[in-house]
Amino acid sequence: MRSIITGTGSYIPKIIKKNSDFLNEEFYSEKKETIPSSNEIIIEKFRAITGIEERRYLEPELNNSNMGAIAAQKAIDDAKVNPEEIDQIIYAHNYGDIRHNDTQSDCLPSLAARVKHFLKIKNPDCVAYDIIYGCPGWVQGVIQADNYIQAGIAKKCLIIAGETLSRVVDPHDRDSMIYADGAGACILEKSENNTKGIISFASQSFTFDEANYLFFGESNKTIPNINTRYIKMYGRKIYEFALNNVPNAMKQALDKSGIPIDQINKILIHQANEKMDEAIIKRFYRLCKTNVPKDIMPMSIKNLGNSSVATVPTLLDLILKNNLEGHQINEGDTIILASVGAGMHINAIVYQY
Amino acid sequence: MRSIITGTGSYIPKIIKKNSDFLNEEFYSEKKETIPSSNEIIIEKFRAITGIEERRYLEPELNNSNMGAIAAQKAIDDAKVNPEEIDQIIYAHNYGDIRHNDTQSDCLPSLAARVKHFLKIKNPDCVAYDIIYGCPGWVQGVIQADNYIQAGIAKKCLIIAGETLSRVVDPHDRDSMIYADGAGACILEKSENNTKGIISFASQSFTFDEANYLFFGESNKTIPNINTRYIKMYGRKIYEFALNNVPNAMKQALDKSGIPIDQINKILIHQANEKMDEAIIKRFYRLCKTNVPKDIMPMSIKNLGNSSVATVPTLLDLILKNNLEGHQINEGDTIILASVGAGMHINAIVYQY
Repeated sequence: MRSIITGTGSYIPKIIKKNSDFLNEEFYSEKKETIPSSNEIIIEKFRAITGIEERRYLEPELNNSNMGAIAAQKAIDDAKVNPEEIDQIIYAHNYGDIRHNDTQSDCLPSLAARVKHFLKIKNPDCVAYDIIYGCPGWVQGVIQADNYIQAGIAKKCLIIAGETLSRVVDPHDRDSMIYADGAGACILEKSENNTKGIISFASQSFTFDEANYLFFGESNKTIPNINTRYIKMYGRKIYEFALNNVPNAMKQALDKSGIPIDQINKILIHQANEKMDEAIIKRFYRLCKTNVPKDIMPMSIKNLGNSSVATVPTLLDLILKNNLEGHQINEGDTIILASVGAGMHINAIVYQY
Repeated sequence: MRSIITGTGSYIPKIIKKNSDFLNEEFYSEKKETIPSSNEIIIEKFRAITGIEERRYLEPELNNSNMGAIAAQKAIDDAKVNPEEIDQIIYAHNYGDIRHNDTQSDCLPSLAARVKHFLKIKNPDCVAYDIIYGCPGWVQGVIQADNYIQAGIAKKCLIIAGETLSRVVDPHDRDSMIYADGAGACILEKSENNTKGIISFASQSFTFDEANYLFFGESNKTIPNINTRYIKMYGRKIYEFALNNVPNAMKQALDKSGIPIDQINKILIHQANEKMDEAIIKRFYRLCKTNVPKDIMPMSIKNLGNSSVATVPTLLDLILKNNLEGHQINEGDTIILASVGAGMHINAIVYQY
């Protein structure tokens, strides 16, 4: 018995925020000092490392859970599942609903409950909860749904991811250019087929030294009497951490699956930094004692940035719907879904289509 | 194979906020109108219905996750478990860490990751995530941990609940007198014993009409240019909803357990309103076609108020440590843990000691 993804959906926000839109920002360093380089140079350096040229921001009149509901509806339609038969709705996020131009996070009620309400699902036995697990929240939600299916308490699950990081970015921090908004979702169902679906997974939390590599902190610009906090990161530490630990977690999942490395067709990895992802994949293949195959790692970061929990499900949906040029997932393909983020948490799933 | 609770812990905040401390508040109605009654009358009416005489507020220098870490350490010590052997840390909350005199919720990183950090646990295979599920979050976390144990992916889990509702209350809303702060935790372990432990559970989410019975809304007092939001509720709707649905969910769990109603020794129910809890228990026993036994429902609300997710684990810890006068849980006793809250979510566990 396996858990299979029977439908996917995503919502890509309408507002395109280009790198050039940051040209007039006043950037300060972590030490709250002005940065000697011009914004042109800062932005070009940013682009060269991260690969990001533009990102999407959610329309002001919408909230995270609105996006999540749209992505969820698309996944339901794609799976052709009766919404009243869904046993669990799992919503991964980190900041709940934050209204445009507001600073308060709101997840009362849970965003999963809001989506269930928007979708007009009546069945009270459909449990709707949120998971907070950094950027790897959606992949972890899929792992949890698989656990429920394996434990016999669920047959059909809806796993949603949504985040509006544009609403928690510090305009005076260069790192803010990484963050984006988005939502993705899938339906995971019990299948009696024993070959297709989730074959194995790995999940890890590194908190001893790493708990605060991503954190909620004050602006890089000193503004008296204002104590608003924003999403912040120690980029270099995260880079080194990810390089040292993500390949191992992926290898752990691969080893559990028993599938040889040369049968892996695609690796869909969380996109926060193109150079970092390339280095992770290189090290993963080195661990597997083979070379990195061509086109193994589809990238969406150039146009979509880092939409946190939403990145992996959005990427999966884009590929399955033939909306990412040069990449396909075909019947019989084996893929790896992998993510890393605040916590620091890491996870990976080996999945056969 | 069963999941058994091998240790509990709680943190009861130090600041006692008495009903009389609200005598000088300016209360307004939901319609933002002044209330004709005096505060003496408002407070006495409140006490008569809810049973609350005082509640606890967290010390200003501490946050939710600090309380959670203390409760978790106590549960670990009580269970005599090696923290490095814990497979999952699940933290139930709804507002993350909110600093004293601040309005921003913070759960980046997850509060479970923060606790794992505070406890200095190194094992990366110990997964640390948060669940958002209204007041029933802790009971749901225990259900999820049981699922992992049943699915064979965990043997030892730490389930924590913590909330600082004192930091999201509207001083101009009478309902604010209900809310309190607190934290509780337990260790749940796999046991080969087939009689003791979690026997059955029920979990439901009612969102069609009920999603916004508890919500994050503006102050009852009109204050120009301030859009800070606070925890709000439609008390009457919640009362009717709980009365109509909580007894059924408890009955569902009891029926699944196969245990006769007369073998239930204690019912530990979420405490938001004494009169409501009494009415729920009365209706539950009516569904079971028997009378309510004496001392079946231990109450902590008089002195602790409604500490959201923390209420049920704190109550359990108080009883097990002989700190709640007139109530004991003994070897062989069967108890029900039940909760209801924002979502609206309801759950119940039948557990044998």
